[in-house]
Amino acid sequence: MKVTLVGNGRVGSAIGFAIVLQRLADELVIVDRVPEAAIGDAADLAHASALSQPMTVRAGGVEAAVGSDVVIITASVPAPRPPASRLQLAESNARLFAELIPKLVSVCPEAVYLVVSNPVDVMTYLALRYSRGVLPPARVIGAGTLIDTARYRTLLAEYVGIHTNDIRAYIMGEHGDSQFPALSAASAGGQRLDSSDPTIALLGERARGEGDRVFAAKGYTNFAIAAATASLLSAIATHARSVFPVSTLLTDYHGVSDVCLSVPAVIGRSGILQVLKVDLSEEEIKKLHHSARIVRSAIDALPAH
Amino acid sequence: MKVTLVGNGRVGSAIGFAIVLQRLADELVIVDRVPEAAIGDAADLAHASALSQPMTVRAGGVEAAVGSDVVIITASVPAPRPPASRLQLAESNARLFAELIPKLVSVCPEAVYLVVSNPVDVMTYLALRYSRGVLPPARVIGAGTLIDTARYRTLLAEYVGIHTNDIRAYIMGEHGDSQFPALSAASAGGQRLDSSDPTIALLGERARGEGDRVFAAKGYTNFAIAAATASLLSAIATHARSVFPVSTLLTDYHGVSDVCLSVPAVIGRSGILQVLKVDLSEEEIKKLHHSARIVRSAIDALPAH
Amino acid sequence: MKVTLVGNGRVGSAIGFAIVLQRLADELVIVDRVPEAAIGDAADLAHASALSQPMTVRAGGVEAAVGSDVVIITASVPAPRPPASRLQLAESNARLFAELIPKLVSVCPEAVYLVVSNPVDVMTYLALRYSRGVLPPARVIGAGTLIDTARYRTLLAEYVGIHTNDIRAYIMGEHGDSQFPALSAASAGGQRLDSSDPTIALLGERARGEGDRVFAAKGYTNFAIAAATASLLSAIATHARSVFPVSTLLTDYHGVSDVCLSVPAVIGRSGILQVLKVDLSEEEIKKLHHSARIVRSAIDALPAH
Amino acid sequence: MKVTLVGNGRVGSAIGFAIVLQRLADELVIVDRVPEAAIGDAADLAHASALSQPMTVRAGGVEAAVGSDVVIITASVPAPRPPASRLQLAESNARLFAELIPKLVSVCPEAVYLVVSNPVDVMTYLALRYSRGVLPPARVIGAGTLIDTARYRTLLAEYVGIHTNDIRAYIMGEHGDSQFPALSAASAGGQRLDSSDPTIALLGERARGEGDRVFAAKGYTNFAIAAATASLLSAIATHARSVFPVSTLLTDYHGVSDVCLSVPAVIGRSGILQVLKVDLSEEEIKKLHHSARIVRSAIDALPAH
Repeated sequence: MKVTLVGNGRVGSAIGFAIVLQRLADELVIVDRVPEAAIGDAADLAHASALSQPMTVRAGGVEAAVGSDVVIITASVPAPRPPASRLQLAESNARLFAELIPKLVSVCPEAVYLVVSNPVDVMTYLALRYSRGVLPPARVIGAGTLIDTARYRTLLAEYVGIHTNDIRAYIMGEHGDSQFPALSAASAGGQRLDSSDPTIALLGERARGEGDRVFAAKGYTNFAIAAATASLLSAIATHARSVFPVSTLLTDYHGVSDVCLSVPAVIGRSGILQVLKVDLSEEEIKKLHHSARIVRSAIDALPAH
Repeated sequence: MKVTLVGNGRVGSAIGFAIVLQRLADELVIVDRVPEAAIGDAADLAHASALSQPMTVRAGGVEAAVGSDVVIITASVPAPRPPASRLQLAESNARLFAELIPKLVSVCPEAVYLVVSNPVDVMTYLALRYSRGVLPPARVIGAGTLIDTARYRTLLAEYVGIHTNDIRAYIMGEHGDSQFPALSAASAGGQRLDSSDPTIALLGERARGEGDRVFAAKGYTNFAIAAATASLLSAIATHARSVFPVSTLLTDYHGVSDVCLSVPAVIGRSGILQVLKVDLSEEEIKKLHHSARIVRSAIDALPAH
Repeated sequence: MKVTLVGNGRVGSAIGFAIVLQRLADELVIVDRVPEAAIGDAADLAHASALSQPMTVRAGGVEAAVGSDVVIITASVPAPRPPASRLQLAESNARLFAELIPKLVSVCPEAVYLVVSNPVDVMTYLALRYSRGVLPPARVIGAGTLIDTARYRTLLAEYVGIHTNDIRAYIMGEHGDSQFPALSAASAGGQRLDSSDPTIALLGERARGEGDRVFAAKGYTNFAIAAATASLLSAIATHARSVFPVSTLLTDYHGVSDVCLSVPAVIGRSGILQVLKVDLSEEEIKKLHHSARIVRSAIDALPAH
Repeated sequence: MKVTLVGNGRVGSAIGFAIVLQRLADELVIVDRVPEAAIGDAADLAHASALSQPMTVRAGGVEAAVGSDVVIITASVPAPRPPASRLQLAESNARLFAELIPKLVSVCPEAVYLVVSNPVDVMTYLALRYSRGVLPPARVIGAGTLIDTARYRTLLAEYVGIHTNDIRAYIMGEHGDSQFPALSAASAGGQRLDSSDPTIALLGERARGEGDRVFAAKGYTNFAIAAATASLLSAIATHARSVFPVSTLLTDYHGVSDVCLSVPAVIGRSGILQVLKVDLSEEEIKKLHHSARIVRSAIDALPAH
């Protein structure tokens, strides 16, 4: 499998390292606006692969992406401070995507696109928009709440004493403050989680705060999102048909349409194979609509291109 | 981890091979009434391990089991024909366990016991009885319906197009004709399985028949049950706290007590860490009680020892 | 990758189990003269795969092998007793191959063939002969002394206290009594093994005797040869370009030609990529020629077809 | 296994990520002079582990290292520019080790120490010196030329068309300009490498330059050294007894004593189990002595403490 990584900042280069350590591609191309760093990382990663199974890693321009099975986009303008100005990030990254996506799509019209750039729900939507109909929604996947979900499952696993793989619990909606745990569909080893247990709701709050905690301490997050992206890539590479909460274009999902939000989806070689409609309580549906409004208005606030 | 395998017939030796190929133990002891075959298999398995990571495998008597972390029992008198005479097998194997278990327990009072011998629900119960209180129920685990569940999940996975790991569906009750799919608690990727879908019920029937199909064709089954036993061993070895349907002594489980049947349980280093009480429909509870009566009467029909 | 297993006796079915446990194929076809056993094993193995990653396993006739990437041949008449009559086995298996190989080759002219049937050096040669020029030598590989080598490395590894992967030492020549350790080319972690150390020569003798020890105890060997065959299959599947001692048609290898014997060879997707000419002492070259004469005369003693 | 990572810069944090992705420890403690970054990375890494198998990762002071099985030291003052001033780095890092090592050793007197800080041969020597006899040489391992060797093997593997695991070829001596390929002991699949082949010597030059190439492009190297350190850690964790070229205190190694240089050594649970004395040509022995003089004079040039 050929994978192209567009954007080689802290997140992108951690993804590259995960791809090499887990041997998730036969060939990895790194595209960055700073060619030197991409060249350096490509060589460093190729050497790293020599310790286990040597792999081809090289730097290149967008045209080097030709023939990629998967394109991972982490490209972003520097995150603005204070974080309040998230909309500003959306606007700058929208400009970046408006330029980048058409180029990538003309080179790789058949690839699956994994969008990691933030705000991820907005950017997933824009990747689709700027592909001008070339990419179907099933081939544009936002990393979304996968990492929030992983954090939540770990907290739940500790609480109930059961392996994370046996915990079914999704954080759904926006990869942001309006996300929510879908407790109606949550179970541990087939046993329903008691949604009235205050600890279980509390752990949802804690999961949401974990990313902020990392951000506050080190100024960015990269390892967890890199591991999450590697999981998605692995599911595509092996056509696993595994279920992940990812950001995808919704069409009448509990009444939500024309916005990208995270819901459980089956991932395989050709991208999203199915979007799963899980049971949600009335309150959870309200939260989903709330997320939808927030992301939608962020999109609408962008200047037209 | 030290593992002792008691009984080296077709099932036992396939388990030995799985342990070696998956490197599930540091030391494997094979105990069989025919020492030659055990000696031959031990050497053959040790050579097999040389292709990857050499492992200590040796044959020995019951006393060689001393210090084992896990004891796997596949010992059995030859299965009688026609299969109608299952009760006869229970009686013969009961005599075998009456002799074997006290010896094993005196040598390995702290081990986790995996019971594979059939009829497995009866034999799991007898292993506990003949341990005369030395083994707590949490340390006596019958392979039960794990393999039936694996077959069922594979059929469901194909039907719904989702990875088996994302299918939550248990075959519960007796490892035999009275087993039943617990559809009330079944889901795929968090989405409930539609229990009114006739195909889904049909696949439950098919899963039950699969073992018979193998038995009819080759006269016994060994590979699937060996792989299932290896999964349990792996969960113990890594203290995974994973959930498997296994045969365990029930105490007021939806009203069933003092009999071993398969229900979902959390498995870790010390055996069964939790028994999970999954939601069952009224009809499913009836089927569980039906299974309980069948296994109970098989136990009661055994001559006293 | 599609693999066909021809011959489903004790060795063949152990190979099937290893393929499933190590997920070495996407599709496995089992061909045997007793269709029932093949059908039973195929279903049993498919169920075993359900515990990890479900795999297609089915029974079929030779025509079901069409499109296979690798064909593994373990087919054999029952081994005669006493073992002295090895030539008799060669004669019977020669008849079997004379019938089998042309059929297989017409269905799978592009596959790599792994020959496991004994006497393996003779049968590898006959597989080539009966393919009537369709199969090049690079695509007919006999399991040869791989398992003897694995045993030898394990003994050496224990003796010198170094991981088997760091031991370079081959048992070369006939997979039989005339095999010999190629000590001139032997090293441990890059440090030469002292060929004058009597223990090191002794361990060569012991390695040769290990197979007999298993045979004497259980009447056959299957697990180690199955693990060895799985290693070769894995190297083909991943195009590993790894080096194994395997039986291959020699052409002026230290003066030996037109006979199959085990020498180190590089294995990848298309079979044998290179035969490695390792340094041998004069005495070792004599032993190689001795092996060649033994195998050659076994071939010459066969009736013409 | 408990591992403590001292120094959480670019190299340290990449090692942390490798440890999590490869699950090389049960517990990881990160010690850094900037507690915030360590706290942030610890949380980020813990979340990353949630995607596969959750792991305990936490930040702490030196005292949190208590009970560690392995201590990995990447702590360093910022690398000076231009790189000509390597001695200056040695002097600064010597002061750092003079303070750090006694504290670590008092907390973890029984641990194996992996030294990654540069100049690694000098720092390995100083770690031993500042442990004041508490640490035996077998428990102080410098990452040395492991990464140079991996690069060299990859180049050789491509050239000869054989898997890197089958290439025996070490870069020995200083992890620096005076390193050299030990071609006398080099082989591929047991076949000697032709040391008169100019390409093979050239590839040794190229391997040495690869690190510089990465440094020139991105200003530092981290992924390859992190992967190399993870390999060593894995060999310790599994008591692999595998052979790696690592920096260790030499005592009459081809006449070299009382300096740390890279030579092949067997690594297991308790550190270095054996130092392997490989055959070297006269010219190679001269190069080893040259490396020894360079490292020795760097040590001697340090101010006394």
